[in-house]
Amino acid sequence: MKNIKISVLFLLLGSFSLNAQSLKSPDGKFEMNFQLKAGVPYYDLKYQGKTVVEDSKLGLRLLRDGNIQFASEIENKDQKGKDLDNGFTKTAEKRDSKNETWDPIMGEKKSYINHYNELVVTLNQDANDRHIIVKFRLFNDGLGFRYEFPEQKNLNYFIIKEEDSEIDLPTDMKAWWLAGDYDSQEYQTQTTNLSEIPAKWPTSYDGNASQTLIKNAVQTPLMLKKEGKDQLYVNISEAAVINYPASNLELDATNFKFKMHLTPDGQGAKGYIQTPAVSPWRTIIVSPKAEEVLASKMIFNLNEPTQYKDTSYIKPTKYMGVWWEMIIGKSQWAYSTANNVHIGKTDFSKLTPNGKHAANNTKVKEYIDFASANGFDALLIEGWNTGWEDWFGHSKEFVFDFITPYPDFDIKMLNDYAHSKNLKLMMHHETSGSATNYERWADDAFKLMNKYGYEAVKTGYVGNIIPRGEHHYSQWTINHYLRIAEKANDYKIMVNSHESVRPTGLNRTYPNWIAAEAARGTEFEAFGGNNPDHQTILPFTRFMGGPMDYTPGIFQTKLDYYFPGDTRFVKTTLAKQLALYVVMYSPLQMAADLPENYAKHMDAFQFIKDVALDWDDTKILSAEPGDYIHTARKTKGKDEWFVGGITDENARNFTVDFSFLPKGKKYEATVYADGDDADYIKNPQSYKIYRKTVTNKSKLPMKLARSGGYAISVKILK
Amino acid sequence: MKNIKISVLFLLLGSFSLNAQSLKSPDGKFEMNFQLKAGVPYYDLKYQGKTVVEDSKLGLRLLRDGNIQFASEIENKDQKGKDLDNGFTKTAEKRDSKNETWDPIMGEKKSYINHYNELVVTLNQDANDRHIIVKFRLFNDGLGFRYEFPEQKNLNYFIIKEEDSEIDLPTDMKAWWLAGDYDSQEYQTQTTNLSEIPAKWPTSYDGNASQTLIKNAVQTPLMLKKEGKDQLYVNISEAAVINYPASNLELDATNFKFKMHLTPDGQGAKGYIQTPAVSPWRTIIVSPKAEEVLASKMIFNLNEPTQYKDTSYIKPTKYMGVWWEMIIGKSQWAYSTANNVHIGKTDFSKLTPNGKHAANNTKVKEYIDFASANGFDALLIEGWNTGWEDWFGHSKEFVFDFITPYPDFDIKMLNDYAHSKNLKLMMHHETSGSATNYERWADDAFKLMNKYGYEAVKTGYVGNIIPRGEHHYSQWTINHYLRIAEKANDYKIMVNSHESVRPTGLNRTYPNWIAAEAARGTEFEAFGGNNPDHQTILPFTRFMGGPMDYTPGIFQTKLDYYFPGDTRFVKTTLAKQLALYVVMYSPLQMAADLPENYAKHMDAFQFIKDVALDWDDTKILSAEPGDYIHTARKTKGKDEWFVGGITDENARNFTVDFSFLPKGKKYEATVYADGDDADYIKNPQSYKIYRKTVTNKSKLPMKLARSGGYAISVKILK
Repeated sequence: MKNIKISVLFLLLGSFSLNAQSLKSPDGKFEMNFQLKAGVPYYDLKYQGKTVVEDSKLGLRLLRDGNIQFASEIENKDQKGKDLDNGFTKTAEKRDSKNETWDPIMGEKKSYINHYNELVVTLNQDANDRHIIVKFRLFNDGLGFRYEFPEQKNLNYFIIKEEDSEIDLPTDMKAWWLAGDYDSQEYQTQTTNLSEIPAKWPTSYDGNASQTLIKNAVQTPLMLKKEGKDQLYVNISEAAVINYPASNLELDATNFKFKMHLTPDGQGAKGYIQTPAVSPWRTIIVSPKAEEVLASKMIFNLNEPTQYKDTSYIKPTKYMGVWWEMIIGKSQWAYSTANNVHIGKTDFSKLTPNGKHAANNTKVKEYIDFASANGFDALLIEGWNTGWEDWFGHSKEFVFDFITPYPDFDIKMLNDYAHSKNLKLMMHHETSGSATNYERWADDAFKLMNKYGYEAVKTGYVGNIIPRGEHHYSQWTINHYLRIAEKANDYKIMVNSHESVRPTGLNRTYPNWIAAEAARGTEFEAFGGNNPDHQTILPFTRFMGGPMDYTPGIFQTKLDYYFPGDTRFVKTTLAKQLALYVVMYSPLQMAADLPENYAKHMDAFQFIKDVALDWDDTKILSAEPGDYIHTARKTKGKDEWFVGGITDENARNFTVDFSFLPKGKKYEATVYADGDDADYIKNPQSYKIYRKTVTNKSKLPMKLARSGGYAISVKILK
Repeated sequence: MKNIKISVLFLLLGSFSLNAQSLKSPDGKFEMNFQLKAGVPYYDLKYQGKTVVEDSKLGLRLLRDGNIQFASEIENKDQKGKDLDNGFTKTAEKRDSKNETWDPIMGEKKSYINHYNELVVTLNQDANDRHIIVKFRLFNDGLGFRYEFPEQKNLNYFIIKEEDSEIDLPTDMKAWWLAGDYDSQEYQTQTTNLSEIPAKWPTSYDGNASQTLIKNAVQTPLMLKKEGKDQLYVNISEAAVINYPASNLELDATNFKFKMHLTPDGQGAKGYIQTPAVSPWRTIIVSPKAEEVLASKMIFNLNEPTQYKDTSYIKPTKYMGVWWEMIIGKSQWAYSTANNVHIGKTDFSKLTPNGKHAANNTKVKEYIDFASANGFDALLIEGWNTGWEDWFGHSKEFVFDFITPYPDFDIKMLNDYAHSKNLKLMMHHETSGSATNYERWADDAFKLMNKYGYEAVKTGYVGNIIPRGEHHYSQWTINHYLRIAEKANDYKIMVNSHESVRPTGLNRTYPNWIAAEAARGTEFEAFGGNNPDHQTILPFTRFMGGPMDYTPGIFQTKLDYYFPGDTRFVKTTLAKQLALYVVMYSPLQMAADLPENYAKHMDAFQFIKDVALDWDDTKILSAEPGDYIHTARKTKGKDEWFVGGITDENARNFTVDFSFLPKGKKYEATVYADGDDADYIKNPQSYKIYRKTVTNKSKLPMKLARSGGYAISVKILK
């Protein structure tokens, strides 16, 4: 009897494993199940035995629309009239594990831990005699999966119509989301339940220089929370978007089900694939603790190590800029009053100066004086080069040449002057979305940078992309950003891209692409304004895949200082601006305000001068998306910490527990906090600074004003 | 009474000139009238008092479609909701004349005469306070006109929806036409009346690697003939298509009215214009004699002189090629059996050779031996570089790098070998339509050419254009061809572009762009076949705007010589192939056949070796489109002439009158003629060669076989 029972058991087990594969995380808390149901692949995800993601479909549809011009080229035997989303049998399965550490060149910690169990299933589509692979990696903080398309006889070239990977959530969840778009992520984050998204979606965005909205879709990274009992945070994103479009998520708000929605090109195609190829990783980070979501390194772990031979030129960069005064409207990028210029033909020295051109020799020297005197690494200057008179809104392909300065900008003199004061200038390449033009000029532009000792460039993509029809997140444009990063590496140049695609951990593979804006940054305080909870959300969304050049540090938050009657203001206290340097991780940080405003608050400015940009360790002390974040970080290679905390539109108290400090040492904490009467609307510039000796037993109570914060520099006491 | 009559006369004249402007050609035979009718501009054209073109509208519509993504950028005050086609008043008028000669670097004559009367009208659109200009030039062989858009306050940027210039013919006419298309001009020419075009249009084209047909439209240059009494030939084309799309012509077959139909980009926009700007010239060449249409230089006269500083590297080039054997299928461009390669990653030396790769060291040396021994300037080699395994049909952007040879092609050794025999190799850059990729590699590719002493490159654009959505004749792609020509000039390289846009006289401004295919060439004899009258039409159409690399010289016309049972054959006699070198003007000419076929007919081959490529003078002795062409040309700088005559599917006789020779000199004419029993189907290789002494009084009766011809080299007798 025993034998029969055992045989039956094995039979049962055997038949189970014929249909479903189970994968567990290293600590056993997560379980992922993969199965084929009638030839269609599904996966699910459980945490501590509870369903986090219900059975969700996988697969891709391939393009065969005869109306699209190129379709005649791809009506070939590779498709055989079938999509890559059904008719599968599992023909192979492989398991693997990894537990390693690796050191990012710059990062939130000296070393990141990459620890996962892996399941690789090979799915054969018998009717077409071709196979694909789905690879799952289950970490102690969630799941990543991707498709792989091996080179094979019957799968060489195909064009994606849509990737239909689903993430089917079991319940309604609170969501911090951006309206889905192929070109912009500069919208205000909305905070609603999933079920409320369709009603809210139509008013969830404002105008933008380049936007293509997708109704009822949202962007990634997407932050979710299941509230109440068994509270759980879920973060959905992508990792390693290379040679593939970036994705939005379509929402079925009734069933709480998301489906990938790739960015098309102008012809409606969503990816031209040549095997062997892989899709990006779809990532689902899960934790009962919001702090652990912020601490997750999954997206970086899923990116490949770099192949760059020399990365010694890549370093943290603290900079100021001739920039904010143009953003607020005090001066201009353009030099002249003309509104129609031809690069290479117009003699700019003959145009009438508008008298408001910021990037002129006199003003730049003043900024150089201030930035160098205060120990900054670099000074960004926007508007240095010809073409700003008509740079925007005309679909002008040859909009800049990136090498010709305006008549009042002496590039040699200014660089010599800066270098004599141990300061570098930072280059600016606004492409106006004209990517083909930028690629044409990139070598000359980078050679100019080398010639004059520029180490980093801020690029911009304001406006619709040229090639016309491509979007900021289309496959072609993704590859453009990567071509630029790789070419910049040839010239040992660091790249900080604005209005580009959001990072997806690519700074591991392309480490000179050190930061991006690619979200609603400080400049929008001068445009529509940022909600007071904006900075308490972004680390849970935009920052998940990599640093953001948020450009904080505005001390003069109210703009009526410049323009009487102007109602615009930066919706934070001054102390909160200091905290942002700790709370929002980036190896490239700007002190964005005008020197005159720092000069008036040199005591507070000291924090910005002191704060580090590269870290041995990071502790998320406490965080709740949309409410508050409190973070402590240890400077790389130094016995020194920085702590920062911020709140939303609510005043809050928080006690900083210094138990992260090593035992038996004494430190001096310099605290920059909101004044007792500080308020982001009524009294933003009220702050206090005081010192305290702290050890790892210390606890410091902090009072944060409405949209306030605090910043603490903690230095070892000798 | 007299005074009153005179006043009335002046009044009448004055009111006439308020509404209409008249322009006459220098010899007075043409009259063009311009007028505004209710604010809409019209022009007409008369020859010898008879209407050639009835009142035809002018104007452009501007894009404002909100559905097109970029439209939000151009919904600006420049448009004020109005198109540029109505509401005009004439605010200025200017007249000018020119009578000059200029010497083309290479041409059909040493000097071209540019003689015209010009009328320039300024039209103000009062409602929008902006103006445009229409410029008319009336030559002794017809009319050219274009739009000019001066830089001004209310016209800086606009996007064209369509240019609606009309050419309204008074009667039905015989037409030699190609089906209208945005990507290909490789169709067979159709010969029908205008009224018959709609019925014929659906069967007027075959398949092509890249095609986007426009129903009931035809291409330019378009040849027309009014038969019977007052016989007249009319040729419609464009000149100087720069930074503007190329155009087809929509036909209203009931009213015999043509309207311009520009090539769109992928978004439907037909031109992004920044003032000051000009449109291409629309040209209407008119003559009672077909010969004079062929002799017209109007299109070149309407192009600007070159700005190139050094043109000494630009020279006539007679070449052979490792090419025809791949076209007929005897060998391959690709090296290996693979069907999926990755440039820069695949190790081609590890792939399995297919054993049919033509561009290998052994074979190339054999071609070098033959070409050098026979005095050719260059040898083209196609298939020399990696990537041919999957170059086509996959919308593959990174399809070639233009710098990496296959393992069996030793680029250094072969160039050294060729140079030791006083021969250059000719480069080949097949782009596969991937223009963005070609631009990325162009500098490295041209540097490689300089390094190994290549002087000329044949480029190709087989397949749909990348940027996807752009067409071969879109504005973006037009500018791409020009960027390549300009960059090639930086490297002192000549360009011969295949599958590009047809030339529109641009070899005056860009003289290194010495030839193009851009029509159905000899290769199509191996594909669908060319009609026997094909070569009697092309000079009246494709060649009007510039030389064509027709690649003639096939001696082994029947392909069953290679493949028993193969029914394909070149539809001419051998003697006609020789005549093509005279009848079809190009400074770049190929002897396209395999060396072994020339070796068997070295006597006939002598003509190809002797024929010149650059001319002091050209006489069109007799020509009728679709029937026959007889041409005599004098070699530049030599006392030597070449005569060539061809016929269609009908055998014909023709007497060559040598009165073009200077008086009092004796010449030796070597005649290469169809044999008495020659026939393009039954006996194509029957030919005879004989010598005759000739003077300017001589007349030589020639018998042309069906699709036959003759070629005569005429050398001074010392």
